[in-house]
Amino acid sequence: MPYFDAASAAPLHPVARQALLAALDEGWADPARLYREGRRARLLLDAAREAAAEAVGCRPDELVFTSSGTTAVHAGIAGALSGRRRVGRHLALSAVEHSSVLHSAAAHEAAGGSFTEVPVDRFGAVDPAAYGAALRADTALACLQSANHEVGTEQPVAEVAALCAEAGVPLLVDAAQSLGWGPVPAGWSLLTASAHKWGGPAGVGLLAVRKGTRFSPQGPAGERESGRAAGFENLPAIVAAAASLRAVRDGAAAEELRLRALVDRIRTVVAERVPDVEVVGDPVRRLPHLVTFSCLYVDGETLLHELDRREFSVSSGSSCTSSTLTPSHVLKAMGVLSEGNVRVSLPPGTAGADVDRFLEVLPGVVAEVRERLGAPVSAPVSPGPAASLVVDALGRRCPIPVIELAKVIGEVAVGATVTVLADDEAARLDIPAWCEMRGQEYVGEEPADRGSAYVVRRLG
Amino acid sequence: MPYFDAASAAPLHPVARQALLAALDEGWADPARLYREGRRARLLLDAAREAAAEAVGCRPDELVFTSSGTTAVHAGIAGALSGRRRVGRHLALSAVEHSSVLHSAAAHEAAGGSFTEVPVDRFGAVDPAAYGAALRADTALACLQSANHEVGTEQPVAEVAALCAEAGVPLLVDAAQSLGWGPVPAGWSLLTASAHKWGGPAGVGLLAVRKGTRFSPQGPAGERESGRAAGFENLPAIVAAAASLRAVRDGAAAEELRLRALVDRIRTVVAERVPDVEVVGDPVRRLPHLVTFSCLYVDGETLLHELDRREFSVSSGSSCTSSTLTPSHVLKAMGVLSEGNVRVSLPPGTAGADVDRFLEVLPGVVAEVRERLGAPVSAPVSPGPAASLVVDALGRRCPIPVIELAKVIGEVAVGATVTVLADDEAARLDIPAWCEMRGQEYVGEEPADRGSAYVVRRLG
Repeated sequence: MPYFDAASAAPLHPVARQALLAALDEGWADPARLYREGRRARLLLDAAREAAAEAVGCRPDELVFTSSGTTAVHAGIAGALSGRRRVGRHLALSAVEHSSVLHSAAAHEAAGGSFTEVPVDRFGAVDPAAYGAALRADTALACLQSANHEVGTEQPVAEVAALCAEAGVPLLVDAAQSLGWGPVPAGWSLLTASAHKWGGPAGVGLLAVRKGTRFSPQGPAGERESGRAAGFENLPAIVAAAASLRAVRDGAAAEELRLRALVDRIRTVVAERVPDVEVVGDPVRRLPHLVTFSCLYVDGETLLHELDRREFSVSSGSSCTSSTLTPSHVLKAMGVLSEGNVRVSLPPGTAGADVDRFLEVLPGVVAEVRERLGAPVSAPVSPGPAASLVVDALGRRCPIPVIELAKVIGEVAVGATVTVLADDEAARLDIPAWCEMRGQEYVGEEPADRGSAYVVRRLG
Repeated sequence: MPYFDAASAAPLHPVARQALLAALDEGWADPARLYREGRRARLLLDAAREAAAEAVGCRPDELVFTSSGTTAVHAGIAGALSGRRRVGRHLALSAVEHSSVLHSAAAHEAAGGSFTEVPVDRFGAVDPAAYGAALRADTALACLQSANHEVGTEQPVAEVAALCAEAGVPLLVDAAQSLGWGPVPAGWSLLTASAHKWGGPAGVGLLAVRKGTRFSPQGPAGERESGRAAGFENLPAIVAAAASLRAVRDGAAAEELRLRALVDRIRTVVAERVPDVEVVGDPVRRLPHLVTFSCLYVDGETLLHELDRREFSVSSGSSCTSSTLTPSHVLKAMGVLSEGNVRVSLPPGTAGADVDRFLEVLPGVVAEVRERLGAPVSAPVSPGPAASLVVDALGRRCPIPVIELAKVIGEVAVGATVTVLADDEAARLDIPAWCEMRGQEYVGEEPADRGSAYVVRRLG
């Protein structure tokens, strides 16, 4: 039963489990108390902080434990923005940050602040120069992930950090996806991470704030973790998080090589064996264990269910798998296809044989889903008689609008257009992406009575 | 090694441990995912929510899991205040709430709101009529703990709830100390609790919001727990929390009787065997397992250390045991002695023999600490010659100012005064409390060049 969704949550690392059990017995008391159970808890907390700080590359008194990666991001952004409020209320971030960063930016805007989203290229990376240009005199904080959680692309953190330093703007690096693999390049002022992404337990995040960074914790005052994380310390989980981070790091170099080779195999074989597929993300500057691809004419939810039936657990950024029925903001910012999207993220220890089996199973599953949806099976595009066509896909969900477009493109003359009427949010992303994959011209989108009209010109 | 500080944190209940271990294996995945590991996690989360809701006495969809009792309080107060912002920005609370409530009130005031602290009587309870009088047309929310965490006194929740209902004001009940013992009386609109207080793991709080209560979550938007608690669900801990709440409740009735008898014994024997002691809190309307007393002429920190050396773990509300060097706000609001303060809170299963041993050891330890501090040993107050005296205790910490006062009161004539100059914050509370215990008249406090001058008139 191969679990290929380590980027969502990793199974508990054996070292984490062992440390958690020991700390349940030794570390349940209040570390602020003076009696022996409290002193014992305080020793465990101090040791965990030292171990985590060493892995992060900061001083122990610069690091606090939060209740999750999300709360670390919320607290870090709010505290840094408030600390530099006199400088201004502008926030810079990339367009492909984790939702916790985007939600913090939205809350900041709702409270009267402003933010700039730096766009990314088709691989999902920001251009350092473009990021630098987004820094203004009133920029209080810049945020950049170390690597993207959906497509694995590494961001140019060192280059952006240098530009931030030049501009005198503190940089918060969300290292949730990468901290288990190694430290973040120097130059950050704030760093956040999440233990359950590296095989630690749920319930632990890290927030490091470099000495000298202006920081003013928000929300009701707290008595714990230097006032930067509210509530009783979750000590057994903290101990387990720190112990497993160290253990994972010890094995990281060897495992990175192995998983990188497995992911390279997936990238190559998927592109070879699955027709009409787009493998996304940077093929080189990327997380070792993560790969994402999108399959034309495929419904992501059905694809996930079929893979699950065959015992493969993967996730997807397709709109049909999201509760809001909108495609992933990451794929959107990259301008790549979102339909039939699959993210494979391999936990450490993944067997090569399981990856092989996945690659054997996948092409058949995709073909099956396409057949069920009546998708065009690599139909060669031939010259057709019609001048222009309108396809009504109103009320129909991804991937149907794209399938209908693909079915009729051969029926219009070269130079003529097909107009797709659609009200599914994913069409806005997937019709241009289809054009790019198919070498057709995406003319543009026009408002319609219901939904939008997407105009495509046949080029060949 | 008897641990008598269950009100801070209880050792993990065996059922919690068992459930945690099982859920580490079965519940590490993301419950929002569609694959089998995710669905299994979702089932566990739903079952835990149902069990916790049943124990709380609400619907499962009214209850969310937070990362601690403190975050439950912060989120509950902020959300309820914002939800009724149109009504007004006034908050009512008792003067003896947990610091998480007080800090929320302070943050609310800093953001332009206002609050009223309802005073308590010498037992630590609010008067329902006084609470009702604090409710105004612009009161958005009222907060009242079910029972006090430092002295154990139960609050008149049902009576206050009725007055709140009459006034149309939602009532948030902080049930952190009592939920393991039984449900909160009906009438609340919001309820908060903390799992590690009932033997569940750290890292889990409960926030229940009754349907129909206006509630607007604050902070960055969240995708989990109905948007009311940010971050990845700490599922193994949540499962353990729910399982242990049920287990603790099953044994609560029998254990309540047993611990209540043990606490009654402590209340009686401490008053008998320790001279110059004040046992505080309501002797009847109280938590079954908690008792607090204060010893005149004793330094709380030294007392705790001496008890710890004899293997008893207790806590204290004395100023010398607090990082801010101020006495407990609870003892202050009650107007009782804070020096030499000891809180004993018995975990379920506490052996009667351990309590007996504590009662044997305590009088000797108190006497020893007093002797070391040069405290007056039940010196009979005799008529003295001096008209009035001034005692300079500036720069000296609790309990020295009170000891110096006690030493000289016999040296002034009946009707004459002793003025104590002191700059320790605890003196403001402890000198009046000493007067009450000793039958002397506390005349009042006057500002001085340094600290304050506390004037006491000898009555006998």
